[in-house]
Amino acid sequence: MHAADMAEEFPVVGLASSALEAARLLARDRLPGLVVVDDRGAPYAILPASQVVRFLVPRYVQDDPSLAAVLSESMADRAADILGGKTVEELLPAERPELAVVRGEDTLVEVAATMARLRCPLAAVADDGRVTGVITASRLLESALAAH
Amino acid sequence: MHAADMAEEFPVVGLASSALEAARLLARDRLPGLVVVDDRGAPYAILPASQVVRFLVPRYVQDDPSLAAVLSESMADRAADILGGKTVEELLPAERPELAVVRGEDTLVEVAATMARLRCPLAAVADDGRVTGVITASRLLESALAAH
Repeated sequence: MHAADMAEEFPVVGLASSALEAARLLARDRLPGLVVVDDRGAPYAILPASQVVRFLVPRYVQDDPSLAAVLSESMADRAADILGGKTVEELLPAERPELAVVRGEDTLVEVAATMARLRCPLAAVADDGRVTGVITASRLLESALAAH
Repeated sequence: MHAADMAEEFPVVGLASSALEAARLLARDRLPGLVVVDDRGAPYAILPASQVVRFLVPRYVQDDPSLAAVLSESMADRAADILGGKTVEELLPAERPELAVVRGEDTLVEVAATMARLRCPLAAVADDGRVTGVITASRLLESALAAH
């Protein structure tokens, strides 16, 4: 079992992609995160769905969650507006979350070791500098347990 | 929109549950993580799929990933054996990952604020101390964008 056998098609987004489109992809496919690629298609970072949620919550509410109730439904109304004018690059936290990157020829153990070291919920499979697929932690577990 | 309206059924596991069963649930439903409840059904922790992967990788390979290639396929053969004799409690990291817990009556903004503060990919909905459902970050985004 090699990374290329485990990899699945998975939407990737570019740094200049619309933040709103990225949020819609996460919502539509119920994904835990998206792989972000740079201008040349090389893996750049992971954009966790929780980071997008974080972006939607005003800083003063993050600092004092008791204020959340005051905002009431207004965030839902404003979510599309907040994300509409932003790029994926603007959504990424200042300290870019490190993305696990593996090669198609890597074994299951190598993929697991890379994920484990980075505590990353998914790994991008990249060959010749371009992302060819994605392996989630749950997909890896499926492969690891399939032999039984 | 309140937490109770967004919550979905989601498998929960107990601290004494079989680690192998938990891994199979994560694999079968391709979940990013499971909610772990205590003996009384109260929310206790989140068990991320990546933590289970971490458990499968021997410490000396985590410390020196170049050794992963040497292990080759043996982990896949051993995964079920490694997990078979363990409980979910044994899988959890020493520093228990904090789980976002919300009430059914909480608003979308309150759920988002709790997730954002804890950087948690999902929130357990609990009323009267028992978990009644789960909201993932992607599900929350779906709700937030549904108005548009």
